[in-house]
This record gives sequence, structure tokens and C-alpha cells, in this order.
Amino acid sequence: MGSEVIVMHSNSGATVSVVGGGVIGLACAWRAAQAGWHVTLHDPAVGSGASHVAGGMLAPLSEGWPGEEAALAVGAASLDRWPGFGGELERASGLSLFTTTDSLTVALDAADAEDLHTIAEFLGRAGRTARVLTRREVREHEPMLARGIRLGLLTDGESAVDNRALLTALRGAAADAGVEIRGEQVADLDALESDRVVLAAGHASARLWPGLQVRPVKGEILRLRARPGVTPAPTRTVRGVVHGRPAYLVPRADGIVVGATQLEAGEDTQVTVAGVRDLVADAEALMPAIGEYEFHEAAAGLRPCSPDNIPIVGAVSDRVVVATGHGRNGILMTPVTADAVVAALAGDELPEMAPASPTRFAVPAR
Amino acid sequence: MGSEVIVMHSNSGATVSVVGGGVIGLACAWRAAQAGWHVTLHDPAVGSGASHVAGGMLAPLSEGWPGEEAALAVGAASLDRWPGFGGELERASGLSLFTTTDSLTVALDAADAEDLHTIAEFLGRAGRTARVLTRREVREHEPMLARGIRLGLLTDGESAVDNRALLTALRGAAADAGVEIRGEQVADLDALESDRVVLAAGHASARLWPGLQVRPVKGEILRLRARPGVTPAPTRTVRGVVHGRPAYLVPRADGIVVGATQLEAGEDTQVTVAGVRDLVADAEALMPAIGEYEFHEAAAGLRPCSPDNIPIVGAVSDRVVVATGHGRNGILMTPVTADAVVAALAGDELPEMAPASPTRFAVPAR
Repeated sequence: MGSEVIVMHSNSGATVSVVGGGVIGLACAWRAAQAGWHVTLHDPAVGSGASHVAGGMLAPLSEGWPGEEAALAVGAASLDRWPGFGGELERASGLSLFTTTDSLTVALDAADAEDLHTIAEFLGRAGRTARVLTRREVREHEPMLARGIRLGLLTDGESAVDNRALLTALRGAAADAGVEIRGEQVADLDALESDRVVLAAGHASARLWPGLQVRPVKGEILRLRARPGVTPAPTRTVRGVVHGRPAYLVPRADGIVVGATQLEAGEDTQVTVAGVRDLVADAEALMPAIGEYEFHEAAAGLRPCSPDNIPIVGAVSDRVVVATGHGRNGILMTPVTADAVVAALAGDELPEMAPASPTRFAVPAR
Repeated sequence: MGSEVIVMHSNSGATVSVVGGGVIGLACAWRAAQAGWHVTLHDPAVGSGASHVAGGMLAPLSEGWPGEEAALAVGAASLDRWPGFGGELERASGLSLFTTTDSLTVALDAADAEDLHTIAEFLGRAGRTARVLTRREVREHEPMLARGIRLGLLTDGESAVDNRALLTALRGAAADAGVEIRGEQVADLDALESDRVVLAAGHASARLWPGLQVRPVKGEILRLRARPGVTPAPTRTVRGVVHGRPAYLVPRADGIVVGATQLEAGEDTQVTVAGVRDLVADAEALMPAIGEYEFHEAAAGLRPCSPDNIPIVGAVSDRVVVATGHGRNGILMTPVTADAVVAALAGDELPEMAPASPTRFAVPAR
């Protein structure tokens, strides 16, 4: 009995159930197992949710904006972890995860150009560097981009990750670290026998912890593949605003991911004709020759969004730690989230993730 | 020995190999088995070629044009067979094959409107009826169509067939009639041990009978599905010319098939971004609300095209009957082709299919 009590309150040998097998759940499970927890991960379809559909760009800097210092701090804290986190996974898996090292945000009109200067100044004040490129420099960097682009913002170090390779690598690393993966749906956290629970079920987390302020925001993407003789893809993630819609092209080893629509549509994951039409139009506005590519796949996922677009990561009870609300930034936020969850399981808080504390909302205790 | 000779020269118990398991090969095999032949069908992937991608509209009338009397005669001969042919298959399979009973060709500009009058007069001279509809009548018939449509041509009896249900029904009917289906690739007709051969391998027929004047013409289509609350699909096949491209919407039980691009691109069956873009744009020009539909599938097939857009059906040697070159009209031409092939196996010629005789080209004998 004595030893059982010790096990229950230590992170060495105590049990934790991770609910959700996307990148967040898998990374939390992996890191928790490395920290000495006995981890079981529950998901009827590991790796099939929003993580599977993601573009995988890591762009907290070029999405920076005055007033959104907390989002920048949290995102940058995770971006800074990515080289170490990704490198460890690449060595373990033998897979290449990174598909580019930099991002290029482009302005198609004068207002967008003004915004790029605003972002550059904001990043400078935050101690991050970003370089404004002239129209000519943009085309020198990425000659396939539209001639009408007026200005660019180059953010070194804003890499991109192949989300599906990442899922494979994380799953392998978790298994190697001793995580047991059970293909089962969890309907009630109280039914789990583990000492602790990590709730990382994306937008569905709100069903398991009622009141949690996370909701699904549908996003459609296209996966294009290079064909023989096509205009080469950009070597950097290219971002821009087209007809008021944020659009991006993320390089892949075999082509380009085009994203993404945003729609509050409940749990609908059907790709619509209008979504495809807009994504193709926006991609062509950035890169006119993209019509040459193979239309390989169109897919939709449900981003788990929080009210303030900052994740919700931390303890919500003595037993349960949540890790959701990552919105469009789940891949980016994976390393820092895993660290924060392991800290929370040990009763600590990761200072960089203070803005993500669930206590900022009125989350009902149970 | 005597009986063996009799078997060799009779259609009762003699053997025939059908090479190709698209709608043409399956229908020929089925009808030949019904006629008393012992039939083996060879295809490594039955039902996976152009037949799988087809739109399935049966529109020889609304594609009529002065000077193309032979194409009209051949197409109309098959259209006239479809109610009986399709009905027999529907009863045998329990599947619904027909997805509409009529076609509506629409004009988006004055030149197209003039063309519709030309077609109506041509059909009248050929003893077929087609009704010109005013702008208002078009919208009364199909209220979801674009307001800018100037004129319509309604062709009763130009139905459409669910191509995939047709493949399923034909495969079942062929098997029930005793056709043996072998999932193997035929590389040499001389290696087949059967008495007779029906070569129905689509564009690949030219590889098995060098000099046969059939070539692949790539076509891309979209399969859209209705979503809850969407604008209802047309109840008729809708055809029109958009930006110089022929476009069509073919009703399905669960949505709409949008077709089709046309590209001479060798054996390429990748769907391109530009193809999807054009199909969506053309579909929206016909039916503005089509963006609401689910983008369910994009696919490409290789139409087996002949130099004069009339099929190539008939004996090319004492042993071999070809049935290919159906271009965009393979589904339409299935019933009359099967009849013509069974006639050719018996040494006869179907008068309606005289324009399709292989002898009109210099097909090398072997």
C-alpha cells in the first residue's frame, strides 16, 4: 500500500492517459514517457484529424502584429524549440521533417506593403529580425512568384514541417519510448483508470471537459505535386493576402501545400467546390504557373480554436491537464506544448506558456 | 476431329477472348456469351479505365451538326437501343442506371444561340425532334441555371447513365451469362488460345494491333455531391460552351458530374490544377450556386479517340474483331457496339454501324 501511494504521486512510474493522437497528443505522450510516466494514448484513428490536414508552416514571426505580444512570445518560444525537437525526431525516425528553413510574406497591394513594414518594426522591437525585400529582391529570391508582388518580408528560421512525416516520426518515437497506443474512443475521462489525464483531443476536447472554450474552425487545403517540367516550387513558405483571404504555399519534398480556408461550420469536414475554387485562385495569384501542378488531394480539417487564438495548455484539475486550442498553429506549438504538459504533470508551470493557462477563461472545475 | 472443326466455325460453343474490361469489353463479352460463345475477358483492372471516369451522358442529338450525319446516325442507333439495353441490365442487377431522361443544351452568347437553331434544324431534317427554349423557359425548366443563359435546346430521350453503376451491372450480367473474367494483362493476341478475339482495350488497343488508328485523349472530370441545404441539381443533363470549352453537368443520384477537359497528352492520367480550375469555373458559369456542393473527387481518364470521331468496330482479320475509338461516347455507344461485335463474330455486319468499319482506315492486316 505504501509503495502504491508513492507511485500515485510521483512522475516516476505513475500512469497517464493521453486522450487524442494528433501531433499534440503524440508529442505529449512521447515526452511524458521520456520523463518516466507510464503512458497510454487513446485515439480510434491516430493521426487522422487536423494534424493530417495541416500545412505545417512555422510562422509566428511573420504573423506578428502590434498588440499581439503574447501570441508572438508563445509562438516564438515554440519556434525556438523546433530545431532541437525536430532534429531529435529526424535522427530517431530517419525521416526528413523540415521542408524549408524560411518564410517569405508578400504584399500584393499598397495596404499589404504597409502591413509588412508594421510587422518588421514590431519584430525588431521584440528582438527578432525580419528583412523587407523590394519587388525585385522578391523575384530574385523566388522567381516563380507573381510579377505584381510589391514587397516581401523575409523571416529566416521560420521553417516548415511535413505534417504527415511528423505524425509518423512522433508515433514511432512514442512507441519507442514505451507509449501504449490504444485505438479506442474515450467517452468519459472518469472512466480512465490512470493517475493523470492529458486531454489533447483537439476541438473534441470540449465534449470531454464541458465548458472548455475550444471550438472547431474548418480549414480546407490542397496538396499539389510537381509534374515533369513544371515551374519549380518556391524554396520558402510563401504567404500573402489574396482578395482579403490569407493564403500560403508551403513547400513539400514532392510539391506544394496550398492553404487554407477558414469557416465556422461545426464539425463539417467536407471539402467544398467554393473552397477549392478560392484556394486555386489564391495560389495562382501568388504563383501564376501553379496550374501546371498535379491536383493530388483536397482535404478539410477542424482546427481547435480558442477565443483569443492562444492555446489552452495546463492543469484544469488535480488530475487533468488540457492541451488544445492551438487553432492554425498546432504544428508550430507542438514542442512547447509537450514541454508545458510534462511540467504541468509534475506540478510545475512553464513560464513561456503562462499566456496559455486555462485559468484565463472560466473553465468549470469538475 | 470433325466435331472440333465444327466448334471452331460456329458461334455455339466456340471460344472468344475479350481483351479489355471497360464498358465496351464487358458489354461485348456479355452479349457474346448470350449468343452462345464461350467467353473469357482479360483485364488486370476491370472497370478502372475511361469507363470509370466517364460522365455518362447520352447526347448524340444535341451534339449533332450539319455534315456529321454519320456520327448522328451511329450515335442515334445506340441511343435508341439504350432503353432496352439499360432496362435489361437494371432488372438483372437491381441497380438504377439512368440518372435523367433528357438533355438541355444552353447558349451563353449570341453565337451559341445561333448554333442551337442550327442543331434544331439539322435534327428536324434527320427526323429527330428537339425543342428550342427561350431564356425564360430555360429557367422554368432548370431554375438553378445562370440568369445570363440566352437560349436552350431540349432533347427529350437524351438520358444519362451512372457509369460506375453500369460497370457493376455489366460485370454481374457478364458473370451470370458465363463469362470468365481473368485479371491478367494481354501482351500479344497471338498468345491467346481462343478461336476468336475481341479487342476492346480502349486507347491501348493500338499496342495490341499496331496501326489501329486510336490515340488517348485525356479528360478530367469532377464528381460533386449534394450537401444539406444546397441548391438542387439540374434534373436534366446540362451542356454548354464556356470560354470556348464544352462543359456539362450530368445529374447523379447523389450529386453532379462536371466534365470535361480535353488534352492530347499521351498516357498522362494526373489531374492538373488548371483542369480543376477550368472545370469549376465552367460549372459555375452554368450553375452559379455549384460552389455549395462537396468537391468529392477529381479524376482523369484516357478516351480512345479515332481520327474522325466515329468508333472503330468490326473485323480486322478472320480472327480478330476490334471495338475501340469511342472517344467521348463510349457509354453512349455501348449497346450498338455490343450488337455489332456479336454480328461480326458471326460473320455479319450491323448496317447501322457501317460508318464505324475499320476498313475506312488503312488498318494493317497481320
